[in-house]
Amino acid sequence: MAQVKNKQVILNDYVSGFPKETDMNIVESTITLKLPEGSNEPLGGYGVAKVLESGHPDYKKGDLVWGVTKWEEYSLVPSAQILFKIENTDVPLSYYTGILGMPGMTAYSGIFEVGSLKKGENVFVSAASGAVGQLVGQFAKLSGCYVVGSAGTKEKVDLLKNKFGFDGGFNYKEEPDLNEALKRHFLEGIDVYFENVGGKTLDAVLLNMRIHGRIPVCGMISQYNLSQPEGVTNLTSLIYKRIRMQGFVVADFYHLYPKFLEFVLPLIREGKIEYVEDIAEGLENGPAALVGLFSGLNVGKQVLVVARE
Amino acid sequence: MAQVKNKQVILNDYVSGFPKETDMNIVESTITLKLPEGSNEPLGGYGVAKVLESGHPDYKKGDLVWGVTKWEEYSLVPSAQILFKIENTDVPLSYYTGILGMPGMTAYSGIFEVGSLKKGENVFVSAASGAVGQLVGQFAKLSGCYVVGSAGTKEKVDLLKNKFGFDGGFNYKEEPDLNEALKRHFLEGIDVYFENVGGKTLDAVLLNMRIHGRIPVCGMISQYNLSQPEGVTNLTSLIYKRIRMQGFVVADFYHLYPKFLEFVLPLIREGKIEYVEDIAEGLENGPAALVGLFSGLNVGKQVLVVARE
Repeated sequence: MAQVKNKQVILNDYVSGFPKETDMNIVESTITLKLPEGSNEPLGGYGVAKVLESGHPDYKKGDLVWGVTKWEEYSLVPSAQILFKIENTDVPLSYYTGILGMPGMTAYSGIFEVGSLKKGENVFVSAASGAVGQLVGQFAKLSGCYVVGSAGTKEKVDLLKNKFGFDGGFNYKEEPDLNEALKRHFLEGIDVYFENVGGKTLDAVLLNMRIHGRIPVCGMISQYNLSQPEGVTNLTSLIYKRIRMQGFVVADFYHLYPKFLEFVLPLIREGKIEYVEDIAEGLENGPAALVGLFSGLNVGKQVLVVARE
Repeated sequence: MAQVKNKQVILNDYVSGFPKETDMNIVESTITLKLPEGSNEPLGGYGVAKVLESGHPDYKKGDLVWGVTKWEEYSLVPSAQILFKIENTDVPLSYYTGILGMPGMTAYSGIFEVGSLKKGENVFVSAASGAVGQLVGQFAKLSGCYVVGSAGTKEKVDLLKNKFGFDGGFNYKEEPDLNEALKRHFLEGIDVYFENVGGKTLDAVLLNMRIHGRIPVCGMISQYNLSQPEGVTNLTSLIYKRIRMQGFVVADFYHLYPKFLEFVLPLIREGKIEYVEDIAEGLENGPAALVGLFSGLNVGKQVLVVARE
């Protein structure tokens, strides 16, 4: 078996508050590509990989796969862990970390299955230029909806309107009153709010929801890593407006993956959907890229290239 | 047409904070029982009434009805307003303000339709001895569930366990740590939380929900009339636990009323369900009874007898 050097990104300790680069370390060891193996515990995340050796009948050497991998150059993936084989390679492989992978499935199942989106509805998306948000907005536009998104820089808001085809967008950092900003963009209220951020945005959205509105809750990134989360004060709106607010995780919807590919691959091939990635090169730049996510430095889906095919 | 004296309960002005008796006035006027009529605006609420004169083909003199009436001895009901005719009079008429009326329908639609209750699940009910809560708990027990409720006095908690057949109950005012109280009663977590109170109770419940739990939101009585509602900080639990939290109003479910009567009338007649009312006599005692609701003075469904048949 070949011996290879294997760089990994590991955490020094539990992270309190938002992660800092100094919380992470790059370590290098020499390993043998042989089952079983395993030592440190590097960070986990979704990645695209090529099978080098397999003890599972469904995967053979040379297969391309996507799924949960670790932040290292060579990974041992337990057989219980779901990996999806990549069959379509006429699109960039990095897309399987995004539009054709977990974020794509998250957007699709969140807006259609959890959000029960209907043609012509008014849709608001927070973190709208991110990996999931940009797809949610475009799926809703393709469904004949009115779509507005929020993001944290002018550059991102411009992307929403000029590249992703949203009907409107605003920079939440420049709005002194989020309630007023939403009223400006939604004269008749919001039918579906795709929730990515939580906190103050959610509180303002609750005041602007329409009767029988839905809030698929995908994430609350503004609240993670806060030692004391912000309180949400407008939940009584759930009653008067008969709102359904529902958290979900994409793992519950992977049975829809084949149906999703049938939906999204033609859109990509026919250029009917835009997809923006923010590419960082090299495992060494992983910690900075991760830290940047929490301050909104990335524009589009953050991808870290560990190796090219 | 007969001239009658008509006592009414009216508000002096908008109420800020919780209502006080001094916010309300009893006024008496002489009116003619003739359509159309109408002057002051007394408080509204659900009541049982007898038709004295009708301009609507569905209602004739002598019919007993329940629905939204006003806090006065004689009411003019607009034809657009839904009234339900009372066909079954072998049960107390006051039940049509409760178990056979709006609160009964609220409990039924909330726990079964919105809450999607399944046999054997773990159910928590707040304001559990109230008009709705006592029925929610008993419906859940009849469905083979484990049921615990919270209430605000020892007397009420005793009712839950000794009269309504709950598996457990606690006085939230005597629990220094609601999270700990819930953990004590729900070793394996809560599948369905029937939400009547909001605020701190909701925050503690979110920490104790099970995966794929449901929270039908019926009311948040601890939050009404607060100038600044308490913030709910544990909403990120919605995501990890894939919780569905859904506000509802009973008006969306009145098409199920015949089905509900088929379900609940036999339970009442066969003594399989307990129902506790707190009866105040006379319109003059209405303001005190209303004020008492907000401090939890009532035990069971608060009923105000304006007149007996």
